[in-house]
Amino acid sequence: MRGAVIHAPGDVRFETLEDPRVIHPTDAVIRTAVTCVCGSDLWPYRGAEPIGDPHPMGHEYVGFVEEAGDEVTSVKPGQFVVGSFATSDNTCANCLNGFPSHCLHREFMSTCQADRVRIPNAQGTLVATDEVPDERFWPGLLAVSDVMGTGWWAADAAEVGPGSTAVVVGDGAVGLCAVIAARERGAERIIVMSRHESRQRLAREFGATDVVTERGDEGIARIKEMTGGIGADSVLECVGTAQAVRQALHSARPGGNVGFVGVPHGVAIDGQELFFSHVGLRGGPAPVRRYLPDLIDRVLSGRIDPGKVFDLTLPLDRVAEGYRAMDERRAVKTLLTP
Amino acid sequence: MRGAVIHAPGDVRFETLEDPRVIHPTDAVIRTAVTCVCGSDLWPYRGAEPIGDPHPMGHEYVGFVEEAGDEVTSVKPGQFVVGSFATSDNTCANCLNGFPSHCLHREFMSTCQADRVRIPNAQGTLVATDEVPDERFWPGLLAVSDVMGTGWWAADAAEVGPGSTAVVVGDGAVGLCAVIAARERGAERIIVMSRHESRQRLAREFGATDVVTERGDEGIARIKEMTGGIGADSVLECVGTAQAVRQALHSARPGGNVGFVGVPHGVAIDGQELFFSHVGLRGGPAPVRRYLPDLIDRVLSGRIDPGKVFDLTLPLDRVAEGYRAMDERRAVKTLLTP
Repeated sequence: MRGAVIHAPGDVRFETLEDPRVIHPTDAVIRTAVTCVCGSDLWPYRGAEPIGDPHPMGHEYVGFVEEAGDEVTSVKPGQFVVGSFATSDNTCANCLNGFPSHCLHREFMSTCQADRVRIPNAQGTLVATDEVPDERFWPGLLAVSDVMGTGWWAADAAEVGPGSTAVVVGDGAVGLCAVIAARERGAERIIVMSRHESRQRLAREFGATDVVTERGDEGIARIKEMTGGIGADSVLECVGTAQAVRQALHSARPGGNVGFVGVPHGVAIDGQELFFSHVGLRGGPAPVRRYLPDLIDRVLSGRIDPGKVFDLTLPLDRVAEGYRAMDERRAVKTLLTP
Repeated sequence: MRGAVIHAPGDVRFETLEDPRVIHPTDAVIRTAVTCVCGSDLWPYRGAEPIGDPHPMGHEYVGFVEEAGDEVTSVKPGQFVVGSFATSDNTCANCLNGFPSHCLHREFMSTCQADRVRIPNAQGTLVATDEVPDERFWPGLLAVSDVMGTGWWAADAAEVGPGSTAVVVGDGAVGLCAVIAARERGAERIIVMSRHESRQRLAREFGATDVVTERGDEGIARIKEMTGGIGADSVLECVGTAQAVRQALHSARPGGNVGFVGVPHGVAIDGQELFFSHVGLRGGPAPVRRYLPDLIDRVLSGRIDPGKVFDLTLPLDRVAEGYRAMDERRAVKTLLTP
C-alpha cells in the first residue's frame, strides 16, 4: 500500500508501506474511499509536537471493507463504512455510558492517509451504509468521521438546545461543523468568532446568524453586548489555545455551558474564577461513534453538508501539498482521493 | 441590636451594633429565629483570608419579618421566612435562568450572626412558610438557607440521578447535606470520603452506603476499585482545596460530572488533563433561592432533617465559643439562638 509518512516538521512524504492485514480477529482492513488532512495534523507538521521516528499519518477515513476478522460480524467485505478517529468495542462500560472515545480498548487511528487501512475494534467502530453512497456524499461522510462528529460533540457538551444562543470560537473545519451542529440542535442565534471572510461566508451558509471579528477581551465584550450583558447560553470552543479557552469561558452566561473540543495546548483554568462564573465545562475527544448513525442519516438525506469544509481536493499522492496548503492557510481542509 | 464582630484572626466578639432598618424600599428587616457559624467563616477566623477593619459576620438566617419596604409584597411582618446567603431579585436574566446566586442585584449577606438583620432584595430573596413552623424545624430550615442548599447544588451540578453512584468529597456540614441530596435524588450508591467516626455515622444515617477513609491517590484508587475500574457517575466536591478538587476530578468516570461547591483556594485545573478525562465540571455559589420552596417542603414534611448537622447549640452571645469549637473540630457546625 501507499501512504503519507511524516519525517520531520514540514516533511511529509508519500511512500510505499507494508500492506495492512487482519492481525486480530477484531480487525478489519478497508480500502480508503477518501481521506484527508486534519488541523491537528499541523501540530507535528509545525514542530509543535514531537515526531520521533518517521511514522504514517492520518485518522480520518471512509472506505470499503476488504477483509474482516473472524469476530467481526457487523460489517462485511464490499460494504461502505464510516468510522471514527478513536476505535471502540461498543460494549465496555465507557462505551455503554456514551463515551466510545474513552473505550477501555480504544486505539487512536494514525495511518489513514493511505489507500488501505487496518481498523482495530472494527465490530464496534465501523458503521456500514445501507448501500454504497453516491460519491458526492463521500466528503460529508468523511467529515462525519471526525470534524462533524467533533462539532456535534461541541454542541452536545455545551448543551445547545432549541431557542438558545450559541457562540462558536474558531472558524476551522471543526468550528464550521459546530455551526451546523448548533443549527441542527435548534439554536436561535449562532455567533461565530472569525476573521476570515471566506470562512465567515461558509459559517453563514451553515447557519451562523452573526459574526464577531474581535478577539480576547474585545471579543468577550462584544458577545456580552449582544447577549443582554450576561453572555451566551452555550459556547463551543473549537481551537484549544489558552486565549480561545479564556474567550469561551468569559463568553458564557452564568449557568451556561462551554464545550471544549480543541485539544488544549498550554491551558490552565483558575478554580476560583471558574467557580464564580457558574459556567459548566466539558470537553474531550468526541464520542463520534455514538453520533454516527444519526449523522450519517443527516448527510445521506441531504439535511447537512459538512463536506463543504473541504476547499481543496488533491490526489492522495500529493498529500504533502495538502499539508502545505493548510499550513499556509490557503485551505481550510484538504480532501485526498486515492 | 447585638451581633458577632470579627476583629482579627481568632478574635470574634459579641457587640452592640446599630439597629438595622429598611434603607431601600426593597429591604426587609428580620428578627433572627436561629443563626449559625459556617465552615467558610473559618477562613478569616484562621487568618487564611484578610479581615481588614472589624466587621460583622454571618450569612445564614431564618427569622420573623419585622419590617418590610414599600416594594416588598411577597412577605409581611410576623411571617417566618427562609432566605439565602446571596440575595436576589428573582426577576433578572440570571435569576430567570435559574442562577439567583448570580443575580444582577446580588448582595452577599454578611451580618447574620445577630438578633436582627437587614435583608436586601427581600422580595426575591425571602420565602415565607405557610405558618410559623414548630421550633424543632428551625435548625433544618436554617440549614436549607445555606449548607443544605449548597449540598443540593453539589448534587444538581454533578447531575446525580436515579440509580447512579455518587461520591461525596468532604464530611463537613455541606458534605453531609450533599449525602442527603444524593439520596433524595435517587443515587443507589453514595460513597462518602471521611476519616471522622462521628461524621461517618451521620453520613450513614443520611444515606451514605459506603465510607472511604483513604485520601489522594489512594482514595482515588479505592473509588476506582469500587466502581468497576472507571469511576463514579457523580462526584460532589464539598471542600475547595487543591487536593479535594484533584481527588474529585479523578474519581469521576469518563462522561461523569463533578459538582464543586467548596470555594476553591489555590486550585488550578490543567486543561489537557480535564479534556482527556471527559469529566464535566460545574460549581459556584449555590442557587439556593431556586431550591427553597422544594427544600422547605422536604424539611417540614419530615422527609429530610439536615438540622442534624448542628452538633453544638449555644446562645448567640457565646458566638465566640462557637467559632472556637469549630476551629478545633470539636463541632461540625454551631447553632446560635438569640
